[in-house]
Amino acid sequence: YIDDKTLYIKDNKIYHIGDMDNNNLDNNEENNFEEIDAKNKLVMPGLINMHGHTYMSLFRNYADDLPFNEWLFEKIMPVEDSLDKQDAYYPNMLSCIEMIKTGTTTYLDMHMYSPYSGKAAHDSKMRAYLSRSVVGDDLYSDPRRLNEMLDEKEKYESDLVKFMMMPHAIYTASPNLIKEANEEANKLGILKQIHLSETNTEVNDSYEKYNKSPVELLDEIGFLDERTSLAHCVKLKDNDFKILKDRKVTVVTNVASNCKLGNGFAPIKRMLDEGINVTIGTDGVSSNNTLNMFREMGLLSLIHKGVNEDVLVLGANEVLKMATINAAHALGRDDELGIIKEGALADLIFIDLKAPNMFPNNNIVSSLVYSANGSEVESVMINGEFVMRDNKILTFNEDEIYEGVNNVVNKYLVK
Amino acid sequence: YIDDKTLYIKDNKIYHIGDMDNNNLDNNEENNFEEIDAKNKLVMPGLINMHGHTYMSLFRNYADDLPFNEWLFEKIMPVEDSLDKQDAYYPNMLSCIEMIKTGTTTYLDMHMYSPYSGKAAHDSKMRAYLSRSVVGDDLYSDPRRLNEMLDEKEKYESDLVKFMMMPHAIYTASPNLIKEANEEANKLGILKQIHLSETNTEVNDSYEKYNKSPVELLDEIGFLDERTSLAHCVKLKDNDFKILKDRKVTVVTNVASNCKLGNGFAPIKRMLDEGINVTIGTDGVSSNNTLNMFREMGLLSLIHKGVNEDVLVLGANEVLKMATINAAHALGRDDELGIIKEGALADLIFIDLKAPNMFPNNNIVSSLVYSANGSEVESVMINGEFVMRDNKILTFNEDEIYEGVNNVVNKYLVK
Repeated sequence: YIDDKTLYIKDNKIYHIGDMDNNNLDNNEENNFEEIDAKNKLVMPGLINMHGHTYMSLFRNYADDLPFNEWLFEKIMPVEDSLDKQDAYYPNMLSCIEMIKTGTTTYLDMHMYSPYSGKAAHDSKMRAYLSRSVVGDDLYSDPRRLNEMLDEKEKYESDLVKFMMMPHAIYTASPNLIKEANEEANKLGILKQIHLSETNTEVNDSYEKYNKSPVELLDEIGFLDERTSLAHCVKLKDNDFKILKDRKVTVVTNVASNCKLGNGFAPIKRMLDEGINVTIGTDGVSSNNTLNMFREMGLLSLIHKGVNEDVLVLGANEVLKMATINAAHALGRDDELGIIKEGALADLIFIDLKAPNMFPNNNIVSSLVYSANGSEVESVMINGEFVMRDNKILTFNEDEIYEGVNNVVNKYLVK
Repeated sequence: YIDDKTLYIKDNKIYHIGDMDNNNLDNNEENNFEEIDAKNKLVMPGLINMHGHTYMSLFRNYADDLPFNEWLFEKIMPVEDSLDKQDAYYPNMLSCIEMIKTGTTTYLDMHMYSPYSGKAAHDSKMRAYLSRSVVGDDLYSDPRRLNEMLDEKEKYESDLVKFMMMPHAIYTASPNLIKEANEEANKLGILKQIHLSETNTEVNDSYEKYNKSPVELLDEIGFLDERTSLAHCVKLKDNDFKILKDRKVTVVTNVASNCKLGNGFAPIKRMLDEGINVTIGTDGVSSNNTLNMFREMGLLSLIHKGVNEDVLVLGANEVLKMATINAAHALGRDDELGIIKEGALADLIFIDLKAPNMFPNNNIVSSLVYSANGSEVESVMINGEFVMRDNKILTFNEDEIYEGVNNVVNKYLVK
């Protein structure tokens, strides 16, 4: 907790906390700091959205409340398949708008439309980890997807934009492909993510085909280590917990998506009891239908208190850590992200504590998890630069994005 | 669905929908209509919050994540007991601010501090149903609470402010008191509400003491009829469903509160399958910790899809009905509230469809339940009068309320 203190931001980092005497500064620097008044505001680290598909905001509220197969195979996939790559750019940017406005500063994105995910990350000036999803039997025999990602990486990798390796899932990628993807990731020195144990069907099929749980299968392949995060993990088996713990894997829970698609509740309390690193993702808009990490935090805490019928499960502090510190740990950046300290990156959000739903401020951490709806975020700084200030996006033209999305909708979704 | 139509509001009602020729108007009236442009806006009926305790916003985020007994008996009740009645006014008003800003136009309030709940309802110009909660063994032997309510009723009852009869619960009010309260309500011709079957303890104690479920007990007393709504109903027994259905009782589910206090999930799907009228309440801030009916709608749908592991459970249309039409039915005002039609009361909310989380507008009802966070509400009309317009409250001074709440907090909660 830091109360009534001054934060000095220099370049892209938190330079100093507290009063500063002139010794801290070079001679001419003293007057170069812009003063920002944060009275009645909370300044806190930006939230980290550990799993999503930004292009899917195109499908917001499209084909809801339909059986899974009808939703995916009759509604979503035909459009995905016919989408011109460049048309993914505007939905990608719309997702960035929504994330910025609700206080997310770093996001992970598994996508199908390189290099437009990279272009959106670049243009939005958000911190991002991107991957073209890879599927199939062999990474190299049909190298289109891998090459698309490597080209995108070469074009857009920067201080802010990093790349990962994301095989889609064990039901769309073979053990062989996952093994190759793992080796390729290790060669490139990048992080890895995959959808895992999301549905009963996936787990049952895994036993049928491999006589193993999905977690056991990936462990055998060698995919599981501290640079790996697993999205979903709703349907874990007893033996899976120990593997996840021993391999220092991170779990990304997607509580809204798991509910909305009827997959149920992940065993979060047990994961935490067993010492597994748990983080939070929104998944894509199509199964959520919003990218609001504040909504996700509140939902996570409430649902697991309900599931366990225990008010003490998933307190506000613990949930806030999942969206910040635990996620920074998963990215191997404990000292840089999700935290306010000297030397950390200046990824900061400014929150209005006078919003009626935040008032009175009897407990600020509680208010972030139980009361906030995300609209209290007024300003967002990423890497030392304001991307939003007083609710206005500064780094690109918001209206152009809405217009672009409308054109894409009219092209694909309106008959 | 009404698209691109004109609504004419006259006095407190929806006068006409669609174009109007001069025959519909008196001679001089034609130019007296103020024109309101609602381009890119959705105009819909205001939401109805069927259960709460407005004074509890004083306790926002105070004493969260504590065991139930410690929370209630050591933290909340000592303050409740020492609170000067008039000090409840500002928290009452803060709750009204939050409800107006998130699109609620009608609320039910079980309170302890007459007549300040009445004064707040009056000053906020919201539509309200109020009741001093009654507890104890006999309504008439200690008539203080009943008299407080009758005095409050006399002072504040109006077109907008109505009164109900609300015995607190079967563990704080005896069967005799509930019977007397029921008779008194029937005599006054007013609606009735009670907390029921909220916790395992309550249900177990009911069997121990009366050899009946709480629902069976109330049925025997004669409390259950179509003018009765029951808050919570988390722990229903098999036999209870038929009684609720046969007696045409309304259930008010409080999904956030039931989770946050660790009470679990109400059997909503079964209630709906058996044809019971289900509506939505936020409960008090102290167990929620917000009064946002949009949050409540989303939570309700997502959780019950998760509980039932079925994507088809509680679709967006059904949930929106619970917050509007079903609630109007419970209040005996099907033709006046929760609906846009000629002759209905002009309780209308104006929603920004260009908010990034609502865009693109592939399905508006879906977006209200799955994507909205409540901050999209821009203007609110109650009984034909704007109480908020372009996010500004018009009927009272918001800042005075925050200052007043601060003073009350400093008096009771800060050591």
